[in-house]
Amino acid sequence: MIEPIQDFYAVIPAGGIGSRLWPLSRADAPKFLHDLTGSGHSLLRDTWDRLEPLAGPDRIAVVTGRAHRAAVEAELPGIDDLNVFLESEPRESAAAIGLAAAILHRRDPEVIIGSFSADHVIRGTQVFEWAVQQAVQVAREGYICTIGIPPTEPSVGFGYIRKAGELVVDGAPEAALVERFVEKPDLETAKEYVADRSYLWNAGMFIAKASVLLGELAANEPELYAGLSELAEAWDDRERRGPAVDRIWPKLKKIAIDYAVAEPAAERGRLAVIPGHFDWDDVGDFASLTKLITHGRKNDLAVLGPNARVLSDAASGILVSQTNRVISLVGVQDIVVVDTPDALLVTTVEHAQRVKGVVESLKLTGQGDVL
Amino acid sequence: MIEPIQDFYAVIPAGGIGSRLWPLSRADAPKFLHDLTGSGHSLLRDTWDRLEPLAGPDRIAVVTGRAHRAAVEAELPGIDDLNVFLESEPRESAAAIGLAAAILHRRDPEVIIGSFSADHVIRGTQVFEWAVQQAVQVAREGYICTIGIPPTEPSVGFGYIRKAGELVVDGAPEAALVERFVEKPDLETAKEYVADRSYLWNAGMFIAKASVLLGELAANEPELYAGLSELAEAWDDRERRGPAVDRIWPKLKKIAIDYAVAEPAAERGRLAVIPGHFDWDDVGDFASLTKLITHGRKNDLAVLGPNARVLSDAASGILVSQTNRVISLVGVQDIVVVDTPDALLVTTVEHAQRVKGVVESLKLTGQGDVL
Repeated sequence: MIEPIQDFYAVIPAGGIGSRLWPLSRADAPKFLHDLTGSGHSLLRDTWDRLEPLAGPDRIAVVTGRAHRAAVEAELPGIDDLNVFLESEPRESAAAIGLAAAILHRRDPEVIIGSFSADHVIRGTQVFEWAVQQAVQVAREGYICTIGIPPTEPSVGFGYIRKAGELVVDGAPEAALVERFVEKPDLETAKEYVADRSYLWNAGMFIAKASVLLGELAANEPELYAGLSELAEAWDDRERRGPAVDRIWPKLKKIAIDYAVAEPAAERGRLAVIPGHFDWDDVGDFASLTKLITHGRKNDLAVLGPNARVLSDAASGILVSQTNRVISLVGVQDIVVVDTPDALLVTTVEHAQRVKGVVESLKLTGQGDVL
Repeated sequence: MIEPIQDFYAVIPAGGIGSRLWPLSRADAPKFLHDLTGSGHSLLRDTWDRLEPLAGPDRIAVVTGRAHRAAVEAELPGIDDLNVFLESEPRESAAAIGLAAAILHRRDPEVIIGSFSADHVIRGTQVFEWAVQQAVQVAREGYICTIGIPPTEPSVGFGYIRKAGELVVDGAPEAALVERFVEKPDLETAKEYVADRSYLWNAGMFIAKASVLLGELAANEPELYAGLSELAEAWDDRERRGPAVDRIWPKLKKIAIDYAVAEPAAERGRLAVIPGHFDWDDVGDFASLTKLITHGRKNDLAVLGPNARVLSDAASGILVSQTNRVISLVGVQDIVVVDTPDALLVTTVEHAQRVKGVVESLKLTGQGDVL
């Protein structure tokens, strides 16, 4: 057991629905509320459990939509009401993480925050903790520090971070500066990145003094910064908070924190990275979910659903069962079957990325009742 | 419009469940009760409608299980109660057709019966009628007459009939003698049959004087004949019928009419055939159902189900929807998806024959609730 880091606060943005996991993920049951690993807990809860030893139970904040408040509080019975930051609507990651930074900075100007997605899967607790501990050391030096994952394959589904030279920080022997962020590459480029060994996957983790993060926001997105500051000033006054959110939040710029904070910081040599030698996956689609559950064994059929009644014969891929129906899969390879009470998806691992298009089509054809 | 044939009685054995169409076909919803063509009617009703001009509404008998009585009468509101012959349990086609022959023969010793499966699909009414009219002429001459389908492809799913020489019968210019019946062949043999042109598909249609058919049964299966005669003698006495069925029916030999009647008759030169130049399919599995609905167009997705809510993208094959769920098929070729309230099947056209194995497995694993 480790001791919580004194000046550290963990922030969990719990926002994205996970459209490419439809019809498992829904507007009212987003990805972070699902148990995708068979752990018996939601991804959100797994995230909390992973952060609690590092931050302590009273110093973990969740930024989520008003609609998910009850579900989040049910998943995290230990959460302090003061640490649930509710958005009136989704405004992307810069607003979500910036809001947490602004509120926590008002409460403690010296606080170091670490932001970790609510719906990623990580295996290897101690290695994760060691990476965060190092990142906090780097953050204390005034850097924004990310944790990058050494790629195990040429994935085209993730962004990459290119390391520059080493960064000498006490207690952070693996620290390096970041040269730049790279968008999702094509396969050839991804292969080069993997061979190069100076590229890491961008896992969307950012650790920084709240003041430093807000400083970057102020420099790069002054209007967003102003809105967040105004919100934070009203936040801990219960009477003023709601009206302030209603007035300010919907006008905030929608921008990813990568663009609003991380990339500009990298350009100025203020972004550092710690390599995270743990298993990490953003479980972005059914292909990655299949791989996660089968551990990459090609001929396995992954079954997700505690009450699944499955009869399979020469079938591989993934079956998600949310009903108590008998499901028979015969002679289908690398299949994706997601069986829910009001919607059924049948596709293949190869076409997993196209599910997002299904969601778009359902919107366009007025079938939003199943989204 | 044609006039009904005076001495003709149509018999519809409505027995088989259609296991290879599970979970569409069920013990309590067998294949013949389904609308598989999108005609708006069940196959049974289509069969009735096809036979009514030939026999008249009062001269069509249905042999079915006691369990299906209500469903059959609902499908066929015009049927005379006297023409519904109820089995206490399935005993195969020789018993079913033999029972009808024995009962109708007692009512009219000169009657000619024609037996037509309740769950086949036929397109081309006039050509069908012309084939039956010829077959009745042949039957009047004391032959058992079948209607064989000129093969349009080397199917390995049907039995074949080999024609011998022509048979000169007035009013039946296409009549021929049958040399022999052939079981389902392998593909090479089937190709030879198609090239040979003296082979026809066995469509399970038999037209004969009831007396002739019973004579064959008496010669080949004397115990079965004796049981059926005893049953027929008691049949039209309402008080004796039920007890007689309970006592005699379960002991009758299970044998197909092909073996009990048609093959022995062919050996003795007493089986004739009329070629049926209409589209015919026994719709034995989802491959044949797919072909039927798509008319063989390879890239089509056949959708069966009046309330289907389908969103497909680069999908072909067949979707059967018995629920009102949204079903999305993405990038799956030659797929078979059958969505029912309590069971879901996902397979491919190629593996359609394996569905019967699923049904066996469900029985063996105690999941008979969905059969």
